[in-house]
Amino acid sequence: MAADTRVPVAVIGATGYVGAELLRLLVPHPGVRVVFASSEQYRGKAIGDVYPFLRSTCDLRLEVHDAGAAAAVADVVFLAVPHGTAVPLAVAALGKGRRVIDTSADFRLKDPAVYARWYGQHGAPQLLAESAYGLPELYREQIKGARLVAAPGCYPAGALLGLVPLARAGLVTESVIVDAKSGTTGAGRSAKVDQLFAEVNENFRAYAIDAHRHGPEMEQELRAAGGTVTPLFVPHLLPVNRGILSTIYVAGNAAEADLSTIFERAWGKEPFIELRGEGTPPELRDVRGTNRCVIGWRQSPAVRQAIVVTAIDNLGKGAAGSAVQCLNLMLGLPETTGLLAPALAP
Amino acid sequence: MAADTRVPVAVIGATGYVGAELLRLLVPHPGVRVVFASSEQYRGKAIGDVYPFLRSTCDLRLEVHDAGAAAAVADVVFLAVPHGTAVPLAVAALGKGRRVIDTSADFRLKDPAVYARWYGQHGAPQLLAESAYGLPELYREQIKGARLVAAPGCYPAGALLGLVPLARAGLVTESVIVDAKSGTTGAGRSAKVDQLFAEVNENFRAYAIDAHRHGPEMEQELRAAGGTVTPLFVPHLLPVNRGILSTIYVAGNAAEADLSTIFERAWGKEPFIELRGEGTPPELRDVRGTNRCVIGWRQSPAVRQAIVVTAIDNLGKGAAGSAVQCLNLMLGLPETTGLLAPALAP
Amino acid sequence: MAADTRVPVAVIGATGYVGAELLRLLVPHPGVRVVFASSEQYRGKAIGDVYPFLRSTCDLRLEVHDAGAAAAVADVVFLAVPHGTAVPLAVAALGKGRRVIDTSADFRLKDPAVYARWYGQHGAPQLLAESAYGLPELYREQIKGARLVAAPGCYPAGALLGLVPLARAGLVTESVIVDAKSGTTGAGRSAKVDQLFAEVNENFRAYAIDAHRHGPEMEQELRAAGGTVTPLFVPHLLPVNRGILSTIYVAGNAAEADLSTIFERAWGKEPFIELRGEGTPPELRDVRGTNRCVIGWRQSPAVRQAIVVTAIDNLGKGAAGSAVQCLNLMLGLPETTGLLAPALAP
Amino acid sequence: MAADTRVPVAVIGATGYVGAELLRLLVPHPGVRVVFASSEQYRGKAIGDVYPFLRSTCDLRLEVHDAGAAAAVADVVFLAVPHGTAVPLAVAALGKGRRVIDTSADFRLKDPAVYARWYGQHGAPQLLAESAYGLPELYREQIKGARLVAAPGCYPAGALLGLVPLARAGLVTESVIVDAKSGTTGAGRSAKVDQLFAEVNENFRAYAIDAHRHGPEMEQELRAAGGTVTPLFVPHLLPVNRGILSTIYVAGNAAEADLSTIFERAWGKEPFIELRGEGTPPELRDVRGTNRCVIGWRQSPAVRQAIVVTAIDNLGKGAAGSAVQCLNLMLGLPETTGLLAPALAP
Repeated sequence: MAADTRVPVAVIGATGYVGAELLRLLVPHPGVRVVFASSEQYRGKAIGDVYPFLRSTCDLRLEVHDAGAAAAVADVVFLAVPHGTAVPLAVAALGKGRRVIDTSADFRLKDPAVYARWYGQHGAPQLLAESAYGLPELYREQIKGARLVAAPGCYPAGALLGLVPLARAGLVTESVIVDAKSGTTGAGRSAKVDQLFAEVNENFRAYAIDAHRHGPEMEQELRAAGGTVTPLFVPHLLPVNRGILSTIYVAGNAAEADLSTIFERAWGKEPFIELRGEGTPPELRDVRGTNRCVIGWRQSPAVRQAIVVTAIDNLGKGAAGSAVQCLNLMLGLPETTGLLAPALAP
Repeated sequence: MAADTRVPVAVIGATGYVGAELLRLLVPHPGVRVVFASSEQYRGKAIGDVYPFLRSTCDLRLEVHDAGAAAAVADVVFLAVPHGTAVPLAVAALGKGRRVIDTSADFRLKDPAVYARWYGQHGAPQLLAESAYGLPELYREQIKGARLVAAPGCYPAGALLGLVPLARAGLVTESVIVDAKSGTTGAGRSAKVDQLFAEVNENFRAYAIDAHRHGPEMEQELRAAGGTVTPLFVPHLLPVNRGILSTIYVAGNAAEADLSTIFERAWGKEPFIELRGEGTPPELRDVRGTNRCVIGWRQSPAVRQAIVVTAIDNLGKGAAGSAVQCLNLMLGLPETTGLLAPALAP
Repeated sequence: MAADTRVPVAVIGATGYVGAELLRLLVPHPGVRVVFASSEQYRGKAIGDVYPFLRSTCDLRLEVHDAGAAAAVADVVFLAVPHGTAVPLAVAALGKGRRVIDTSADFRLKDPAVYARWYGQHGAPQLLAESAYGLPELYREQIKGARLVAAPGCYPAGALLGLVPLARAGLVTESVIVDAKSGTTGAGRSAKVDQLFAEVNENFRAYAIDAHRHGPEMEQELRAAGGTVTPLFVPHLLPVNRGILSTIYVAGNAAEADLSTIFERAWGKEPFIELRGEGTPPELRDVRGTNRCVIGWRQSPAVRQAIVVTAIDNLGKGAAGSAVQCLNLMLGLPETTGLLAPALAP
Repeated sequence: MAADTRVPVAVIGATGYVGAELLRLLVPHPGVRVVFASSEQYRGKAIGDVYPFLRSTCDLRLEVHDAGAAAAVADVVFLAVPHGTAVPLAVAALGKGRRVIDTSADFRLKDPAVYARWYGQHGAPQLLAESAYGLPELYREQIKGARLVAAPGCYPAGALLGLVPLARAGLVTESVIVDAKSGTTGAGRSAKVDQLFAEVNENFRAYAIDAHRHGPEMEQELRAAGGTVTPLFVPHLLPVNRGILSTIYVAGNAAEADLSTIFERAWGKEPFIELRGEGTPPELRDVRGTNRCVIGWRQSPAVRQAIVVTAIDNLGKGAAGSAVQCLNLMLGLPETTGLLAPALAP
């Protein structure tokens, strides 16, 4: 029997929604072996007892969050823990010479002052300049060689894939509104009254209007792409498990630009982006369980607005999917490895 | 025993979602008796066999759509049939000297050319000038004396209650975007694949982007209130039964105006409007099963936008509720008669 | 202006799902005034700030759980607090000469030993014999004069209305299975991971199989009605907010008995029970938001089984609705007062 | 470049829910190529235009239902068309020497008289004896060599995997009740009012009580396994897209038998069955999107009942998954090929 050449990886924070999605993607992934998984809440339990759907393929026991132990056995360490707590775990794993892919907000913002304003003082600000923003469509080359990758926020992932091509084309200069609607897994798996079934089901609401932490992250990357305005970001909570649909309004010349060409040039070769243009608008089910982003648009010269609609799975392209895509880049594997399952529809 | 002084009313088209909601409101209404109800699909059946929840209180048998028969027994005729088909029924009932409250689009638009562009040639254009637009918050006095009332479209109802105060204050002059999300009953009760449970559940999508029939209706009333721009209207389909949440973006001076005073002056005495201002944003459950509209707002001077959020029940304030509120005005009853049940939450 | 003759009532535990439903029913109830409401979690807040849908009609501030304070101002005290904690509150209110309607499990079981086995030692066992079981269809006369009423458990309410007529007819002697499916509000409004939206939505499961606390309550009342067997009770969790559908299998002679006559004799005059017999089976939407119970049945002589299906709203007939029906009886009001709103469908 | 050794397959009826699930499984399946797909409703369209999630991997154009054309290019023909219409298509494909896997009810029942009673006269009764019942756990060897396989009905699949081990052990001799709850895709993708979102959502109901076509299918296979009684089958409609949870009540000695050993002997080596015994009861999410069946049980000697609970995905193990598992057997491929993706949870 040949030696197992699969790369050993660890998942710290394996039982939240992002952690579980990482396991769902990594366990069957042909290029890696999950050798370490941890959970404060379920430590000591077998993964299969917490997530029965993994029982047949993964028999690990959940450890405590110990970056040293993870780094001792894994080449790449995934972090799926709350912001703030990711910093010391990343520092420890990097210190052992391991590569880190973090799904929290801890290494996405480049400016420590901006981080401090939204999340509190940063514990290792020197790493902010080094970390790669983990959206391969934007930073593919940098990710390949990175020691530390920050998977994007779910809302920024959906918004940026719709906006960056326009920003690069000089079309984001007047006003941008991101009206986004997310499924509930984006709020994580902690017990909160306002996330109970009977509070969310048959309901819908806006929240954190113009005051959500993902706003500055969007702005950072939008400006990096050439945009000159601050986007207005309004998130809403959908009664679905997964998915973010972003309806994006770009005022100005975008209303009459050749968007087909602009998007085709930007994303035409991207394996996970489907450009639907003026055809059937994107739906959440098109991307459920996938790493894909579907993008459609309409233009209204009469009111000088372009409307761009993007659909992603917040746990896929918006978190674990992008993280695994980055992993593939970092390991020199084909970028789509383990990420090609069709959407689960219906 | 005293004579029954309740006013006899008819519901033509009683088994669609709007028709059923009319029955749900009218059967227990203390001021009226439902004496005629019709349904092409279920004619000959007892109402209670189609809608068991009405069995104990209403024993009518469903007739065919015969406006003459309705007018023979009822003082007020409600129409809840598809646009186009409402016109001849209204003409017939009016011809018998009855008053008509129509919930279709047939009498909302004032300009026959606009109607023709969106719905086809109008069958009785002379009635368009006469009909009252059935949003009491806008046309209370006219409704009281009207022969013909056109209950508002569900999307326009939600949008206009958030926009008209600003338009009257001269603040709707630059750009208005209405990003609206509706439950599925807004699409009616006809059998369509794209409205099947498994197509809508766990899904979310935009549709008819900048191309929905309710757009010109919004514009008509927005301009009537002093707005000088065409709103950009983008509807979305929510996986809930009832409710419309409209997130409205008004560019310009509205970003810094005294919205509390403006809304308070406009709606402070309205019995069905709750002004929530900068407090907890409106949710669909706040209005489920009611004739209420909840309005919240935020202002972002940095991007020169005011964000107004409104929540209504599309079958309530967006259709049957407004229709019954108009009925109360037409009959000289207290305006809230039969419409004060609290929301069904959860 | 005439004096307000409405009876003052208190709701201790006003912000859980049962407490909120009590307010939804009691605030518009023409025979009572809610003069006291309490909540440990939200004390000090206005009711309308916790439940905006009550804002326009109820301006009470939430107190702490103080039965003495409640008894000082109210003639009837409703308790909607967890089992165990209801006992001392009931004792205190009764001690002040007030009447108590408890919606917890604390006064439903007659045998202190059975209570102890399922809930722990009872704090006032002498009250168990006195309390009336609050299902008016079973104990109407006793409830009228009771000081202490125990509203039924939600599952027993649905099961007993389907089974008691058969038990009284001597048909419950071989085997009874209650396969019940409940919406999530039955689990209360406390923050638990397994009640999060993403854990319940698109999911379905059995739980507490043959081991649920409502089993002995069903058995107590079933035997009181003449049944001679222990029912097998299997509850399931439905991804809906409200409602319990119970599919009940009665083996033996019930398969060939004249169920129409049996049910008609038992419930034919009950204002809140609809007998559907072999017609369209009951659905949850038939009873949503109501105090009604719809009952249908089929018989299979080939396998010697009768199948009885009942639908109730777990917060209505299964809790707050029955409690208000009991209140009406206790106050000598028409039994249906405040309870006749049609179901909210769809 | 090496020759493509993948076996060409056809899917006739590719746009219903079962047909789409077949494509979802077959397009990425490493052992086959989908070379023909048909749809009456969407003929002429590209698959990717009907099902965008297949756009990137399957560029076929939908043909009409032509078994001859399918047989001309494919070695195995899947049929996913309504019962009755599958017969002539199967006859035609078999006549061309192709193997057929039918997902309709047309070849499941062995007795033409039983078929006639439930579905009407059979068009090719001579094939009933030949066809293999496509549940590999029951008929693995027969399936391997079959020309014609009838994939099981969704309800029978879930019930039989829970019952057959008991029947084989002589424990199904007194009474069996199958109380099953199914997601809506089981009803197919045709436009019907009672399958509209607003009719199913927030609702739950029993239907076809003791009168469903899947009853005789269950009975046939239960008796073939040694059961001596007719099961009582009561299906219910769940507001979820996918999944069947069957709560099965077996009266008699099963209440005290060694179920662990019985199930372990029967299914211990089955790759798609997880035996959970008395642990956490099965949930729909455990199997969503998979070909798996999870089985749990409890025993109640006091009432002489065993309760067996099974969970399957009605489109997976209950239809397309079993069909692909059969395909693997027929082609001599590892039985789990293309069927090992973890459940999509949440």
